[in-house]
Amino acid sequence: MYCENDEDKLHDECGVVGIFGAENAASKVYFSLVSLQHRGQESAGIAVSDGKHITLKKEIGLVGDIFKESDFEKLQGNIAIGHVRYATAGGRTIENAQPFLNTFKMGSIALAHNGQLVNHAELRAMLEDGGSTFSSSSDSEVILKLIVRKYIENGGHLGTPGDEDNSRELNKKSFTDAVVQTAKLIKGSFALCVMTEDMLIGVRDPNGIRPLCLGKIDCPVKPDNDTSSRLDGDTHAPDGDTGEPDNESAVIPRLDRGIPYILASESCAIDSVNGAFIRDVKAGEVIVITQENIRSINYAQEKKETCIFEYVYFARPDSVIDGISVQEARYRMGQVLAEEAPVEADIVIGVPDSGLGAAMGYARASGVPYGMGIIKNKYIGRTFIAPTQAERESMVFVKLNAIRSDLEGKRVIVIDDSIVRGTTSRRLVDILRRSGAKEVHFRVSSPPVKFPCYLGIDTPSKNELISSTHELEEIRKEIGADSLAFISLKGMIKAFGADSFCKGCFSGLYPV
Amino acid sequence: MYCENDEDKLHDECGVVGIFGAENAASKVYFSLVSLQHRGQESAGIAVSDGKHITLKKEIGLVGDIFKESDFEKLQGNIAIGHVRYATAGGRTIENAQPFLNTFKMGSIALAHNGQLVNHAELRAMLEDGGSTFSSSSDSEVILKLIVRKYIENGGHLGTPGDEDNSRELNKKSFTDAVVQTAKLIKGSFALCVMTEDMLIGVRDPNGIRPLCLGKIDCPVKPDNDTSSRLDGDTHAPDGDTGEPDNESAVIPRLDRGIPYILASESCAIDSVNGAFIRDVKAGEVIVITQENIRSINYAQEKKETCIFEYVYFARPDSVIDGISVQEARYRMGQVLAEEAPVEADIVIGVPDSGLGAAMGYARASGVPYGMGIIKNKYIGRTFIAPTQAERESMVFVKLNAIRSDLEGKRVIVIDDSIVRGTTSRRLVDILRRSGAKEVHFRVSSPPVKFPCYLGIDTPSKNELISSTHELEEIRKEIGADSLAFISLKGMIKAFGADSFCKGCFSGLYPV
Amino acid sequence: MYCENDEDKLHDECGVVGIFGAENAASKVYFSLVSLQHRGQESAGIAVSDGKHITLKKEIGLVGDIFKESDFEKLQGNIAIGHVRYATAGGRTIENAQPFLNTFKMGSIALAHNGQLVNHAELRAMLEDGGSTFSSSSDSEVILKLIVRKYIENGGHLGTPGDEDNSRELNKKSFTDAVVQTAKLIKGSFALCVMTEDMLIGVRDPNGIRPLCLGKIDCPVKPDNDTSSRLDGDTHAPDGDTGEPDNESAVIPRLDRGIPYILASESCAIDSVNGAFIRDVKAGEVIVITQENIRSINYAQEKKETCIFEYVYFARPDSVIDGISVQEARYRMGQVLAEEAPVEADIVIGVPDSGLGAAMGYARASGVPYGMGIIKNKYIGRTFIAPTQAERESMVFVKLNAIRSDLEGKRVIVIDDSIVRGTTSRRLVDILRRSGAKEVHFRVSSPPVKFPCYLGIDTPSKNELISSTHELEEIRKEIGADSLAFISLKGMIKAFGADSFCKGCFSGLYPV
Amino acid sequence: MYCENDEDKLHDECGVVGIFGAENAASKVYFSLVSLQHRGQESAGIAVSDGKHITLKKEIGLVGDIFKESDFEKLQGNIAIGHVRYATAGGRTIENAQPFLNTFKMGSIALAHNGQLVNHAELRAMLEDGGSTFSSSSDSEVILKLIVRKYIENGGHLGTPGDEDNSRELNKKSFTDAVVQTAKLIKGSFALCVMTEDMLIGVRDPNGIRPLCLGKIDCPVKPDNDTSSRLDGDTHAPDGDTGEPDNESAVIPRLDRGIPYILASESCAIDSVNGAFIRDVKAGEVIVITQENIRSINYAQEKKETCIFEYVYFARPDSVIDGISVQEARYRMGQVLAEEAPVEADIVIGVPDSGLGAAMGYARASGVPYGMGIIKNKYIGRTFIAPTQAERESMVFVKLNAIRSDLEGKRVIVIDDSIVRGTTSRRLVDILRRSGAKEVHFRVSSPPVKFPCYLGIDTPSKNELISSTHELEEIRKEIGADSLAFISLKGMIKAFGADSFCKGCFSGLYPV
Repeated sequence: MYCENDEDKLHDECGVVGIFGAENAASKVYFSLVSLQHRGQESAGIAVSDGKHITLKKEIGLVGDIFKESDFEKLQGNIAIGHVRYATAGGRTIENAQPFLNTFKMGSIALAHNGQLVNHAELRAMLEDGGSTFSSSSDSEVILKLIVRKYIENGGHLGTPGDEDNSRELNKKSFTDAVVQTAKLIKGSFALCVMTEDMLIGVRDPNGIRPLCLGKIDCPVKPDNDTSSRLDGDTHAPDGDTGEPDNESAVIPRLDRGIPYILASESCAIDSVNGAFIRDVKAGEVIVITQENIRSINYAQEKKETCIFEYVYFARPDSVIDGISVQEARYRMGQVLAEEAPVEADIVIGVPDSGLGAAMGYARASGVPYGMGIIKNKYIGRTFIAPTQAERESMVFVKLNAIRSDLEGKRVIVIDDSIVRGTTSRRLVDILRRSGAKEVHFRVSSPPVKFPCYLGIDTPSKNELISSTHELEEIRKEIGADSLAFISLKGMIKAFGADSFCKGCFSGLYPV
Repeated sequence: MYCENDEDKLHDECGVVGIFGAENAASKVYFSLVSLQHRGQESAGIAVSDGKHITLKKEIGLVGDIFKESDFEKLQGNIAIGHVRYATAGGRTIENAQPFLNTFKMGSIALAHNGQLVNHAELRAMLEDGGSTFSSSSDSEVILKLIVRKYIENGGHLGTPGDEDNSRELNKKSFTDAVVQTAKLIKGSFALCVMTEDMLIGVRDPNGIRPLCLGKIDCPVKPDNDTSSRLDGDTHAPDGDTGEPDNESAVIPRLDRGIPYILASESCAIDSVNGAFIRDVKAGEVIVITQENIRSINYAQEKKETCIFEYVYFARPDSVIDGISVQEARYRMGQVLAEEAPVEADIVIGVPDSGLGAAMGYARASGVPYGMGIIKNKYIGRTFIAPTQAERESMVFVKLNAIRSDLEGKRVIVIDDSIVRGTTSRRLVDILRRSGAKEVHFRVSSPPVKFPCYLGIDTPSKNELISSTHELEEIRKEIGADSLAFISLKGMIKAFGADSFCKGCFSGLYPV
Repeated sequence: MYCENDEDKLHDECGVVGIFGAENAASKVYFSLVSLQHRGQESAGIAVSDGKHITLKKEIGLVGDIFKESDFEKLQGNIAIGHVRYATAGGRTIENAQPFLNTFKMGSIALAHNGQLVNHAELRAMLEDGGSTFSSSSDSEVILKLIVRKYIENGGHLGTPGDEDNSRELNKKSFTDAVVQTAKLIKGSFALCVMTEDMLIGVRDPNGIRPLCLGKIDCPVKPDNDTSSRLDGDTHAPDGDTGEPDNESAVIPRLDRGIPYILASESCAIDSVNGAFIRDVKAGEVIVITQENIRSINYAQEKKETCIFEYVYFARPDSVIDGISVQEARYRMGQVLAEEAPVEADIVIGVPDSGLGAAMGYARASGVPYGMGIIKNKYIGRTFIAPTQAERESMVFVKLNAIRSDLEGKRVIVIDDSIVRGTTSRRLVDILRRSGAKEVHFRVSSPPVKFPCYLGIDTPSKNELISSTHELEEIRKEIGADSLAFISLKGMIKAFGADSFCKGCFSGLYPV
Repeated sequence: MYCENDEDKLHDECGVVGIFGAENAASKVYFSLVSLQHRGQESAGIAVSDGKHITLKKEIGLVGDIFKESDFEKLQGNIAIGHVRYATAGGRTIENAQPFLNTFKMGSIALAHNGQLVNHAELRAMLEDGGSTFSSSSDSEVILKLIVRKYIENGGHLGTPGDEDNSRELNKKSFTDAVVQTAKLIKGSFALCVMTEDMLIGVRDPNGIRPLCLGKIDCPVKPDNDTSSRLDGDTHAPDGDTGEPDNESAVIPRLDRGIPYILASESCAIDSVNGAFIRDVKAGEVIVITQENIRSINYAQEKKETCIFEYVYFARPDSVIDGISVQEARYRMGQVLAEEAPVEADIVIGVPDSGLGAAMGYARASGVPYGMGIIKNKYIGRTFIAPTQAERESMVFVKLNAIRSDLEGKRVIVIDDSIVRGTTSRRLVDILRRSGAKEVHFRVSSPPVKFPCYLGIDTPSKNELISSTHELEEIRKEIGADSLAFISLKGMIKAFGADSFCKGCFSGLYPV
């Protein structure tokens, strides 16, 4: 009657957020991080600038457990970035928690990163050869050190008496250039929020593998009518104020100086602070926010290949990524799946929470009634234990439970978003049968996962991926279903009505 | 785009569980309490007997936070009861946490209670006149003291040398009689798990207002084929071994001595320990479990009036209460609602989590597609704070979020399980409109709540109940919906196909 | 060079305090409990009355760790009692934590107790026969239940309309009588602080075995000049002036209504709230404090036999108990020891902390220079651990360390306050020798402990007491000293200049 | 009757420890840090190497609260360093907690530092100009970065296939050179423990201002007979294996490879792990410990000027620093004080804990009896609070209490180790008088503190130092004593029998 979940999924690395120009920026970042908590539960942190100094707090744990009211008395300022981190095996150390903060010649830089570099080792070696030191094994720290080095090379201006304003401006340019130069050097997936004492910069990799979007706060009117949309418009016709082709940038004076901006991994974080979504940061784009203006710099040819698993599993259904609603995408994958792999049945159910959307779509397209079928216990957190060895196995019965009245004597279609190792699926089918299901038809709203990810997703090795080692019929037998079908890669593309995604884990073909 | 919830609901008081004859009974109770956590998040406790002594741990907090692995080294024994408690305003004190434990002449008794007594004050006064003292303001402690007093009056036998076995049996009889006598004295709603060093007793009030069910553990075969069902059978033809009509009892020798029994507020708790549901405890029934046998005593004429809000809101969808699946009941309420109050629309959505079932049922009956529409953040717990005063209000945006792609330009039917004060509903409609809904049709799967509950449910006073003070059209205007409809009381009864429920909050007519 | 301590000592049970008439009485009790923390580190609690209700908080842990600032917002009121408890083996349960609180017919009573009853089992059986129930195994709860029962029997008056004041007075009388009746029933050692919503009562057993004293707060002038001394004066006068020996009472109208009173186990607790010591509660005396007056009732013939170990080890040196300064007593024991057991030596040192006073006295009398010799690490608390099994033994090296420059090449006299099992003494001598001591002369400022205590002190069984099983010379060899001497019982009495003490652990003769 | 203390003292910065070659080195460091806890209570940390990787844990809090048993499962390895840090105002941040850990080209380096650099700003600027970044404001991180940079410049050898051993040796040389080069660059006070994956190095500044000593573990025999003493001997005749005069070094092959070495701020830390003291690290010396041998390098002309406040206040009495027993030094300061400032009196008492030694010495020299007089509550820790504003002031009464029987009617000599602001002294005299002292003669065992410290001691500014702004007679009046005397600087030197100390706070003349 029950089933374990979660352990048998791919997992994302983190969530990032940055806010510029808001009173109590840290507490707004706190709210945003709670809304991004699903992207990582290992550690969380917030760095905030009061214009002169950056203060940082980061710890192991959930956002809600880490930050107390008294913390916000110290986390004062109008510019802040935040980070939540996913717990990869064995890596629960405070050293790898983000944001990273470095203080040096020109001041301080804090950085939050979602993604993974493929040329991390080479860059770290290069930096180490140049004398850099690291306090963690994180590739995110490598990005920070690169920015620092470029900033120094660009010649930070420490200010001359009587000319502080000018040097400040020169510094802002040096720093922006350093971020752009770094973005060109690093390869892989990256969505970054980087801040100095008086700037906030967002960066997305040239393939836009990891998501990042831009919004405004305290602006309840529809974004269409508002000045910020000019940024969106202008970037299609960027003004060429620099000679360098990749430095084409759209500068929007912040006439609306009082309006705070927000950068976040998902649009649900913008909603969490009652903000208004403006647009996604483009692949290969740098967004620079200062007190004076907000600029867009296209540092690389955009070749959009958003990680398709953001839609399949990682993102929250209420987020919109690169113009596509996550929930809508899940409906459509379910619909296509119903077309590709129909079966007569009495009920369609989804595996909570990420299988629900596809199940709803499948139900709509097939006409088979949608039901709940399975429920997940939401009170199971990190402190939940199995007091005796014997009970370790039965922990799964506490996590998931079947709803017998939905299943007994019925032909059941169960939709999961993906199959990774297959262990969960087998247990799930068993549970459905024990709860009286007459037939169990397993449908998967993503194609078979056959290849590990090198761009930030925690995947088991190839020979642990059941679709890599088994044929479809073998898998069906293994999990004990009456029938089994995956959506086709073609069908998935059809569902999206586009093909601008990284599908490396299905195809073995990676953008980088 | 968001909406607050929860504060604008009725709330149950608690969940209880009891396990007899299981190795590490405390850890099984722990699992069960986690599965009943939705019934109360204020405090939790476990009392366990090793046959000679009862050990107790109870604390303020969630089950998963209270119990550590080291606790279970001390909580040794094969008989245990547990309790989770709901936080009524201002009552977060350890003194009212359950189970209650009393040690006296004949040994120890621990008790866990879900419900509320209406003759609590009289009984307490009576006990106080007889010299009883209390360590809490809880009516549950009154029940415990009553049992103790009756037990003493019945003449507990403390054992004579050479005749320990006989006195032990006499004591068991005295204690059972005391529980039965107490059950007859107390008026109101009560589901009890009571234990001594060597017995476990379950009691349900004569109206069966609060739920309680019986199961077996470690018995994966279907209950139908299993000896325990004899209890069910036999109770229909109870053997009359006592002269008292209300003491008719069915005695089943525990030939299967090794099989542990479980009593629990909801069947999902039985599932959580991989147990098998046997049957509900009947209204007016006492279930007595000892090492030798399991007995049923009908101490009062059964006049079943289960609290209908268990199905509407309190219980988990995967529970079956008094033969009715909670989820099935919600579907049916939604279906009847669709028949009673149809409207042309593009999507049906439910308010998570308790409105989902009715929304699915409405969708099935109406043919309008079912969608998600709204999402609830599951990472918001007791430690979540609003760092600044200004942010206190916007906390709601972190809790609930709308899915714009489900709503924009659409005619939306939104189903909630109930309207209490109406504040949430107004905010919800506003959010749906801001997310682009063209029309918002509000449907409620329970009738208007017009009367406070005196039987264990935390209700606001009558003049805070919007349906008590406003007409339907006024409420519609107040919440800003295009249309509003509640299921009728008659329709609700039709949905259940039965009328054995307490519907006091709708009708003002109470069973007690 | 080191030595373990503490585990090889006798231990007291607890400390009590009660305050009447002070603003924020709970926070003053908190300060007092911190000053009594040496009397018990297991659990602590405070009960406070706001005139209508008694609120209680108690927990496992140190006073400073249990109470947070937010607790004192709830612990409002002008009457409060508190308790710190010593951790007897295996007994670290919240159930035995004090104060105990009971609510019943006539209101609420909270009680804090230091001591141990010898007729505990009989009284508990009697109460249980009468129907009483207990939530702990503590004999202190027996005292509370006895008071409750007597109070009820005395006829509490619940108030008649228009005559509340009168009934209140009658109740005060009933309650006072109940405490007096209880004090006569219980046998053993007891110092009690008992409170109702509007009274505070202190009780000391007829032998005055456990200490209890009375003081005033916010009264920096010397007590001699102040009205409160009238109580002191009067109690010398009233004695024997009524027929009933136990009802002699001195009533002092509280003309000084605003002045708060304090009852405490030791005078250092009075000092901790900047109060002024008035006098010790007498053996067999009850002190009743109400808003109107403060009364003394002699309920039993005073036969003072204060536990002599209070002076030897338990009490703080800055406390004065029954007119004798603890520190002064230790000096004098050291002086007599020097007279009885002189030896040529280069330095006298004491085992910290309780051996220091006697060592100073020995030095004064003998002319041998006093030195430090040994130091104890004050940062070792309950959270200190030995990470590896191998290190468990060497934990002692972190606790105590020798000062080599005080010892190398020297003839050393080391004074400890007592020898119980002898294990510590052996290790100590070894350490002194390893630090270069040429000769080690061990002197003990109390006579050989040969008998266990039945009056509240945690003693090992008789055959674990080294002085019970070994002759002096055998002990000397066992601990490896060059010479060994205990003060004689006669010498000890000489040191005190009086013989009004319980010396049961030396002589086997107990007052009760 | 009471007195506050501590706030009116100078305070040291930290304590360091390093252990090489011990099983479970981290748990031994843990014990050592507990014994050095008096040197800093703000934060603590341990870094440990398993030969390949360095693992670090550091946190705000007391050593005993930070480290749990489970931590030591992760802190595996045979080489470890540790640090405890003093809380300077406002600086309670995890960023400044030590040890610092950096990973770079050649591996990892962890560093723990006690002291303060005077050329910190210049060095940081130089490093920043070279591109270094910092994660804290600590001058200790500057030292670490300098070592890293020098190490890189010296050419770390990353190993060539087939020649790993050789490159490893070359690396050890590069690293050792880097530490020596850094030690020559930094100015100020420093005692360092630095480690790589396979080395431990101790460094002491050329003036030896902060203490550091060397010991061996698991070697209970007296150090005199032991091979390690050869190190001590040999350094007087260092072998000249390098051309540079300051690189003269004594190499002792570690024939005794199994014997672990320990470096620590105070010898009491060596005692805490049952180790044997070898000798102090010399001023201007570097001690290099590898698996193969232990070497001494004299990188600077020794010009010993140990901070004299280590003896006056900072160090534990059982420590021996630079051949002088701390406790012995305190006795002698008391003796000289008695000679310089005698007075007729009845009792000599010391202000606990650091005034006790001098008081004992004064008593010996003067013949006036030594007594306790004042007691300090040892249960007052960081969690102790004053619940109400009004009680904040009376917190002092809980901290210190007078022993009236030692004072009443007596002429009292009270010895404190120093007077800084004078606030404590005034309160203390008041308390002694209120406890009945007839005369109060205040004696101070260090000369007047007139100048702030620039070498690591937290001193108030010059105009807050009472001796800087007041004449002796003014101070006497201010504190209300009958007489007042400080030891003379000459007398202090006489007490030590040597003049190799930094006495900057008395004279304004600093070694650096």
